Amino acid sequence: MIVALAGGVGGAKLAQGLQLALPPGDLAVVVNTADDFDLFGLRICPDLDTVLYTLAGLANPETGWGIAGDTAATLGALARLGRDPWFRLGDQDFATHIHRTERLGAGATLTAVAAELADALGVPSRLLPMTDDRVATLVDTPAGRLEFQEYFVRRRQRDDVLGVSFAGIDDARLPDGVAAAIAAAELIVVCPSNPIVSVGPILAVPGMRAALEAAAAPVVAVSPIVGGRALKGPADRMLGTLGHAVSAAGVAGLYAGWVDAMVLDAADGDQAPTIAAELGMATLVTDTVMGAAESRRRLAEEVLAFGRGLVAGRGRPSPVPAGSGAP
Amino acid sequence: MIVALAGGVGGAKLAQGLQLALPPGDLAVVVNTADDFDLFGLRICPDLDTVLYTLAGLANPETGWGIAGDTAATLGALARLGRDPWFRLGDQDFATHIHRTERLGAGATLTAVAAELADALGVPSRLLPMTDDRVATLVDTPAGRLEFQEYFVRRRQRDDVLGVSFAGIDDARLPDGVAAAIAAAELIVVCPSNPIVSVGPILAVPGMRAALEAAAAPVVAVSPIVGGRALKGPADRMLGTLGHAVSAAGVAGLYAGWVDAMVLDAADGDQAPTIAAELGMATLVTDTVMGAAESRRRLAEEVLAFGRGLVAGRGRPSPVPAGSGAP
Repeated sequence: MIVALAGGVGGAKLAQGLQLALPPGDLAVVVNTADDFDLFGLRICPDLDTVLYTLAGLANPETGWGIAGDTAATLGALARLGRDPWFRLGDQDFATHIHRTERLGAGATLTAVAAELADALGVPSRLLPMTDDRVATLVDTPAGRLEFQEYFVRRRQRDDVLGVSFAGIDDARLPDGVAAAIAAAELIVVCPSNPIVSVGPILAVPGMRAALEAAAAPVVAVSPIVGGRALKGPADRMLGTLGHAVSAAGVAGLYAGWVDAMVLDAADGDQAPTIAAELGMATLVTDTVMGAAESRRRLAEEVLAFGRGLVAGRGRPSPVPAGSGAP
Repeated sequence: MIVALAGGVGGAKLAQGLQLALPPGDLAVVVNTADDFDLFGLRICPDLDTVLYTLAGLANPETGWGIAGDTAATLGALARLGRDPWFRLGDQDFATHIHRTERLGAGATLTAVAAELADALGVPSRLLPMTDDRVATLVDTPAGRLEFQEYFVRRRQRDDVLGVSFAGIDDARLPDGVAAAIAAAELIVVCPSNPIVSVGPILAVPGMRAALEAAAAPVVAVSPIVGGRALKGPADRMLGTLGHAVSAAGVAGLYAGWVDAMVLDAADGDQAPTIAAELGMATLVTDTVMGAAESRRRLAEEVLAFGRGLVAGRGRPSPVPAGSGAP
């Protein structure tokens, strides 16, 4: 079993690559749910749905999110009723939200609903929400504290991010299925998702970091920063305004203590020695920019080959005697 | 102010005719809500929406219900998720249900939501649910007791109707706006809707019949039975299996005591003398079969002219001394 940690579009691409590279059923994807919110009375789970649609082969290749060929008649009719159509939801996409909202209202867990959706859409991998409890990313900006989608979609990430918090995180429980998957994993892959607002909330679920640190499997992370820029989204600016180095090495620094190894893009190959020397992480330098499915699979295969050759060592009692010069 | 009582398609047609024939704002339509039900976690109000879409000029002219040109991507995607798409809901139509469900969940009354929807879609008439409380028509058949839409849509009205009841009706309250509209009306028009399952529930709301009987305005009903058949729906078979005469006169008999006058189709002109003699109702015989908007307006104008010439007399102390031979 391979476990991937993922946010939205970038994470979904590598998750799809892993699914293509592995036997059916060998992948579990732990997905950020701190972007989730309610709109029009429906529960919207952007990252879960992006991973779902991508793994189901339904994702819109233009945007990375939403369903290919989806129409917008429902949203248009909501606008006619005076509702603000600021968050783009397609007609087929609405079905997901309607179904999920009803199931949650009937008492189903988000985990159960994600499994149902994955099953209905023929996804061979397991889709695991990071928690079944409600967590909400809040972003502090010069314009004040914003709900995540307000910052991300409505205001198009134009605000400097001065702080990030996850409301509800202290009460969020680690689902048994997530804990079991991490404990049983052969390899754990941190997808190239935003370290602050995608991987950050996953890691902040009480018990998650301890589970990752205690896992027998090595943990390998793919840098979402390539050549000093985020391939998608505001991760680069966000790292900068929060005082982190805007580089693959900066991401590696954030992940130190629970990640064993980093996969860097060829553009950042010069950072590999520093990451190895300063953080004690193994590195793989390769082309990490994913396009269509074949390139996702190719990267996944390289990550799998690299990761399977690693020995987990981070954050656990070192096999090397104290004082012997371990990094 | 003219008040119309209406169910779905047939009632909506005459309501549209009345709206076309009257100055804007002079029509209030009291609509059956006993067909309402929940589907996919959304509150569906078939008759309210049929009247809404018809008065807004959006109705599908082929079916009489739904929105013209609407698509079915959401329902198709729900089917892909394993949900049974037995009840046809269009993409634009879903917006109505989503909006309404959210507003009801936030504590708005059905009356308030109906007013918002009518306003948003530019309807100049008032749309008044018969009650804000939940009432559900149940149909007893040889196959057992069925929820209304189960009988009406899923089983296509194939079952004989042996009995009809309205669950929740005893606790349903007459909205103030309905009581006020009836009290202030110049004329009350009972649209050609199913007497049992459309007009029946409206009349069964506690206080409704008393309000109608106490109204200063005359009440005129348009027969939904023409030539011994319902123009649409199962009213004819339902009247028969419930032991009523399947005729305009049979409908008049059901309405006796609270309706002053009947409008009959020319095909039933021979029943006019009987209705007048046996029930004391005035009658108008004309072409009651409505097609496009112009024929709806023409019938409405005839009904208005006829109704305005009437003096209300049903169910109230007769101005004629007892024993003087009043019918």
